[in-house]
Amino acid sequence: MADVELLIVGSVALDTVETRWGRHERILGGSASFAGAASAFFTRPEICAVIGEDFPEAHLDFLRSRGVGLGGLERAAGKTFFWNGRYAPDFKSRETLETQLNVFADFRPRLPPPLRKPRFLFLGNIHPSLQLEVLSQVERPRLTACDTMNLWISTTPKELRELLARVDVVLLNDEEVLQLSGEHDLLRATRAVLAMGPGTIVVKRGDAGALLFHDERLFVAPAFPLDKVVDPTGAGDSFAGGFMGALAALGTLGNPELRMAMIVGSTIASFAVEDFSLDRFRRLTVEEIQERYAAFRELTEFPDLGHLLPAGAR
Amino acid sequence: MADVELLIVGSVALDTVETRWGRHERILGGSASFAGAASAFFTRPEICAVIGEDFPEAHLDFLRSRGVGLGGLERAAGKTFFWNGRYAPDFKSRETLETQLNVFADFRPRLPPPLRKPRFLFLGNIHPSLQLEVLSQVERPRLTACDTMNLWISTTPKELRELLARVDVVLLNDEEVLQLSGEHDLLRATRAVLAMGPGTIVVKRGDAGALLFHDERLFVAPAFPLDKVVDPTGAGDSFAGGFMGALAALGTLGNPELRMAMIVGSTIASFAVEDFSLDRFRRLTVEEIQERYAAFRELTEFPDLGHLLPAGAR
Repeated sequence: MADVELLIVGSVALDTVETRWGRHERILGGSASFAGAASAFFTRPEICAVIGEDFPEAHLDFLRSRGVGLGGLERAAGKTFFWNGRYAPDFKSRETLETQLNVFADFRPRLPPPLRKPRFLFLGNIHPSLQLEVLSQVERPRLTACDTMNLWISTTPKELRELLARVDVVLLNDEEVLQLSGEHDLLRATRAVLAMGPGTIVVKRGDAGALLFHDERLFVAPAFPLDKVVDPTGAGDSFAGGFMGALAALGTLGNPELRMAMIVGSTIASFAVEDFSLDRFRRLTVEEIQERYAAFRELTEFPDLGHLLPAGAR
Repeated sequence: MADVELLIVGSVALDTVETRWGRHERILGGSASFAGAASAFFTRPEICAVIGEDFPEAHLDFLRSRGVGLGGLERAAGKTFFWNGRYAPDFKSRETLETQLNVFADFRPRLPPPLRKPRFLFLGNIHPSLQLEVLSQVERPRLTACDTMNLWISTTPKELRELLARVDVVLLNDEEVLQLSGEHDLLRATRAVLAMGPGTIVVKRGDAGALLFHDERLFVAPAFPLDKVVDPTGAGDSFAGGFMGALAALGTLGNPELRMAMIVGSTIASFAVEDFSLDRFRRLTVEEIQERYAAFRELTEFPDLGHLLPAGAR
């Protein structure tokens, strides 16, 4: 049996989401769903997560149809992890109306033997102890990345530090980087987190784009300016899925490849927010991905300074 | 007598500024000071502004020494415009402790004849009626740009709309773009402002960088990630000065030149915030500007997508 190219551990959820473009009930959500479907444009992912008895078969069919392997998806007695949230009209904040952990409360990732040798591993945002448990079940992957959240930074700092010492890449948002480091400046904070172990850090900054710090070099990926954001849920996980999927497909892991993966992640995330749930992925084509990646270049390219300054300067 | 290359109308002020790096009293500030000194790395600016009897001669000597023409600087009876502000430790907000308009309250820009044929004109943030008065005193420049602020958007919308219909470039921050357009989405808001007249819009987004919308094309300049921001006062005006100075030096006004000017503006602004007042400009060298411009390329470049996607995609 071939090794797994990319293993993604996280949540599969049912979300009720309200934005100024509408309200949708019990739609497909969760970090492993978004990251899995996003990565599947580039590689063959397997997801490890848990669902309850109420989880619709149609969602499983959809994930399978996108090429997401479900060999590590456990169905447990009880109800699926449920989240209900509402976004402000300008999407600058959101309100959690309800969270039911349900079967996710007792989730203990147990990898079936075929999933224990992944070439790439993404540990989505779950309790750091569970992320560490996954690490103990796999042979050392070529690259391991992890996500986390403010809750674990404040409640389980010891486990989180242990995890950070054992991963290659950490993906955080800017507030998490500041919180984790205790620093005020993003750049200092980023360096402080690197000193905790991971060789590479990705800082997600929402509509300000994302930063990559790798090998003493800094890269800035803009967020794609969109006419209409419909539902930002899963943007970060879609970014992570695109990022990891691209790296798995590229194989080489140098600075140019990490930069490509950043733009791929930004590209996929920009599509994800154009519709509710994972719905934009249902109709997303290879050509659209290629076009938007090229649009990122058009968005960021500028000429050399040339002789402007020496001529004008006194 | 040669035409003026760049005329800058705005304020010259004395600021008392407190940041977590210190507190400095009655230091040189004002939009025309920052924009003037910033642009002087690239062209020969003249500033039109007003100062009071208390304004230190040393500040005038400094501006002259940077190549800033003071032919339009009026000294009026009374005290100089004074601002006292304190920044939050993370620089995400600031508190105005005191504003004394002083001689600025009665400022009516009167251009001496030698300044009435500027090739480039920057109308810094003053009352839109005064900006319009300046326009009525000059022969049509090759390019006119203006800045404004939330106060004028809410209190003098009619005058501001009249101004916007008569300028080529408007520079606004993101909140101002949203406020002026009444839109929620930055991109829609930007288009709405373009429909008010200016062919080009620059949206300043602080540490998220700046957007350029010109000729149906969008460009995103990142903010330069800095180890230590000392004093953000004047960042926007320094950006504007670098932007206008570069355009004046380039002469050509196509999309590539506007993109260069965006990176030049971002470069100069990134230096401005590294020290209080205009102090970083006192020791800024041509080589440093060239190096940081090149660093913007290193910060933003990434490979083409190549064959990544067709190979991986199903």
